[in-house]
Amino acid sequence: MARIEDVSSPARTAEPGEGIGRDELSLATRNHGLPLEALRYDRTPPGLHYVLTHYDIPYVAEDAAWELTIGGHVEHPLRLSMDDLRSHPAVTTRVTMECAGNGRALLTPRPVSQPWLVEAVGTADWTGVPLRALLAEAGVRDGAVDAVFTGADHGIERGVEQDYQRALPLDTAIGDAPGVLVAYAMNGAPLPPQHGWPLRLVVPGWYGMAHVKWLRDITIAEQPFTGFQQTTAYRIRQEPHEEGTPVTRIAPRALMVPPGFPDFMSRARVVRPGPVLIEGRAWSGRAPVTAVEVSTDDGRTWNEAALDAPTGHHWAWRRWRFDWTAVPGEHMLCARATDAEGDTQPVDQPWNRGGFANNLVQRLPVHCVEPG
Amino acid sequence: MARIEDVSSPARTAEPGEGIGRDELSLATRNHGLPLEALRYDRTPPGLHYVLTHYDIPYVAEDAAWELTIGGHVEHPLRLSMDDLRSHPAVTTRVTMECAGNGRALLTPRPVSQPWLVEAVGTADWTGVPLRALLAEAGVRDGAVDAVFTGADHGIERGVEQDYQRALPLDTAIGDAPGVLVAYAMNGAPLPPQHGWPLRLVVPGWYGMAHVKWLRDITIAEQPFTGFQQTTAYRIRQEPHEEGTPVTRIAPRALMVPPGFPDFMSRARVVRPGPVLIEGRAWSGRAPVTAVEVSTDDGRTWNEAALDAPTGHHWAWRRWRFDWTAVPGEHMLCARATDAEGDTQPVDQPWNRGGFANNLVQRLPVHCVEPG
Repeated sequence: MARIEDVSSPARTAEPGEGIGRDELSLATRNHGLPLEALRYDRTPPGLHYVLTHYDIPYVAEDAAWELTIGGHVEHPLRLSMDDLRSHPAVTTRVTMECAGNGRALLTPRPVSQPWLVEAVGTADWTGVPLRALLAEAGVRDGAVDAVFTGADHGIERGVEQDYQRALPLDTAIGDAPGVLVAYAMNGAPLPPQHGWPLRLVVPGWYGMAHVKWLRDITIAEQPFTGFQQTTAYRIRQEPHEEGTPVTRIAPRALMVPPGFPDFMSRARVVRPGPVLIEGRAWSGRAPVTAVEVSTDDGRTWNEAALDAPTGHHWAWRRWRFDWTAVPGEHMLCARATDAEGDTQPVDQPWNRGGFANNLVQRLPVHCVEPG
Repeated sequence: MARIEDVSSPARTAEPGEGIGRDELSLATRNHGLPLEALRYDRTPPGLHYVLTHYDIPYVAEDAAWELTIGGHVEHPLRLSMDDLRSHPAVTTRVTMECAGNGRALLTPRPVSQPWLVEAVGTADWTGVPLRALLAEAGVRDGAVDAVFTGADHGIERGVEQDYQRALPLDTAIGDAPGVLVAYAMNGAPLPPQHGWPLRLVVPGWYGMAHVKWLRDITIAEQPFTGFQQTTAYRIRQEPHEEGTPVTRIAPRALMVPPGFPDFMSRARVVRPGPVLIEGRAWSGRAPVTAVEVSTDDGRTWNEAALDAPTGHHWAWRRWRFDWTAVPGEHMLCARATDAEGDTQPVDQPWNRGGFANNLVQRLPVHCVEPG
């Protein structure tokens, strides 16, 4: 007799030298990153923004009657149609979003899960209603501690059948830095199915797990939320049974547009001798990026990159560039960001069992070759 | 001294038991398939259509002055702006496109390249100018045999530096079944960057390698084209030094929407006992799909699925469905398509060194479990 528990396997790390398995590959073929050359765009074009879906993308017809319920510890429980939401004053925020598991597949030992290298990022303009406006309408009662968000996506993780659910502390939910959005548009268009059509949460500055997609319910709770995605998954732990610390805001990171042109299979890069523009984007969900440094010798020496002037988009990445003069030979390019809180990127892996928040410095091998 | 040849490694197949390597993973994180639940849509929503890019996605600004040149063995070489192309009578064709490497990672031994399982497919409406109209304008001269298409994407494969180039036999290029398009719109919108902005070729019924993206030149040739992508890559071979046969039209395939709900990590499916709709899509680039069969016992017995009425979209997939009554236990679901030429899908792997055109029957394990 089949049981739900038998469908899942336990969390594990890969053995030394173990290649990516069929399970990790089945995630990698459906979820996808930002091809790094798309770091050239201020705003990520449709289909290039990273996508991570825990279960299936729910099928919601174009004319479906979607309803958002707001209840729990409130004075006036609400039931809002999409038209109700669209009739509220709208806010648009440009947000750089990154998966909490970005960098996981570079860790040793490798936590077995969605095997991101460095590319699980994207930037979009999200339009919707400020969460604090909806919660003010509902009237949060004294004693509330968490706002719990439920999506329509349903599945199993480590034997636990669940709808995807995450909570935010109440002060974050009703605060204005970041201003959390209940969003119905991405880059001025209705949300694509894989980004939460018709409704999702957007929590600027936080890793992707907080931005609940296919949002159907918000419940205000008097007790801290202890669901799977809050207390089992998305915790920084060295040992399996530790309580761990929660994954919250995005650690600083800089990524380069890979210069030159690639080999199809190895993705190794070739540049020509002479001036080479090294450019990219940098972000932090904790504080503004204040510096980006570039190394062309695998981190032995570092050079200050030029940051573009601030764009006014507080929660979005910042462009940077560095002029390099390439000489024939092999080079290892690196870039690292530092934010206004003084956080920077490590050159040694910040390992944890779940493979979260690995903002290890990007290393990009480049072959400088004279034209043939 | 670095040489272009040193950047590439030779083509190879994986050792027995060898997991997916870092090189294959770096392709899998940037290219992506269709999440199979998106088989529910007649036309694949933006961002869910499969993408395979050999090199980088070229950066082409929104206001770039793109030019398509048509030359070689013609009476009147042409230089066409995007406005020129848009002023020609437009045709829209719904096309199911599939990567020639779909199914590669299921082969044993596994050819090391982009590691697709079964999901490298999508369907879109492509709008553009019929290629035969442009070639008529240019006036193809007697003795022409091939039309050679060059994209703006540049890279290296197995030591060969190249712009991506593919040819079609002249009779295919000027024929009307399929009617080849020089396309500038996808689903009524400008092409997204990863689908060839601003211009690409669309060859209905052919595997994806023929649909040259970022199309900038068409050259009519008096000799058969012998470029890398025509004579080295995209050939069906058992041994490395065989001439092989070219990869051309899409072999028949049926895929199921995975029923029920998944486990995050294993993607194993859970359904409840009772009626379960098994639905999906089927296509062939060679001839219309005439039958889809479903097995719920790993291919021991097969049942006829119901095909939706033809939609008039000759080059697009066809919807099918089958009503299953699930009973508790483990089940292996399979589906297979047959086309009007009598081609069907094999249950034994059609192995070749490049891992092309593997239309092995899809096998989908399902756990039928009583509600907990």
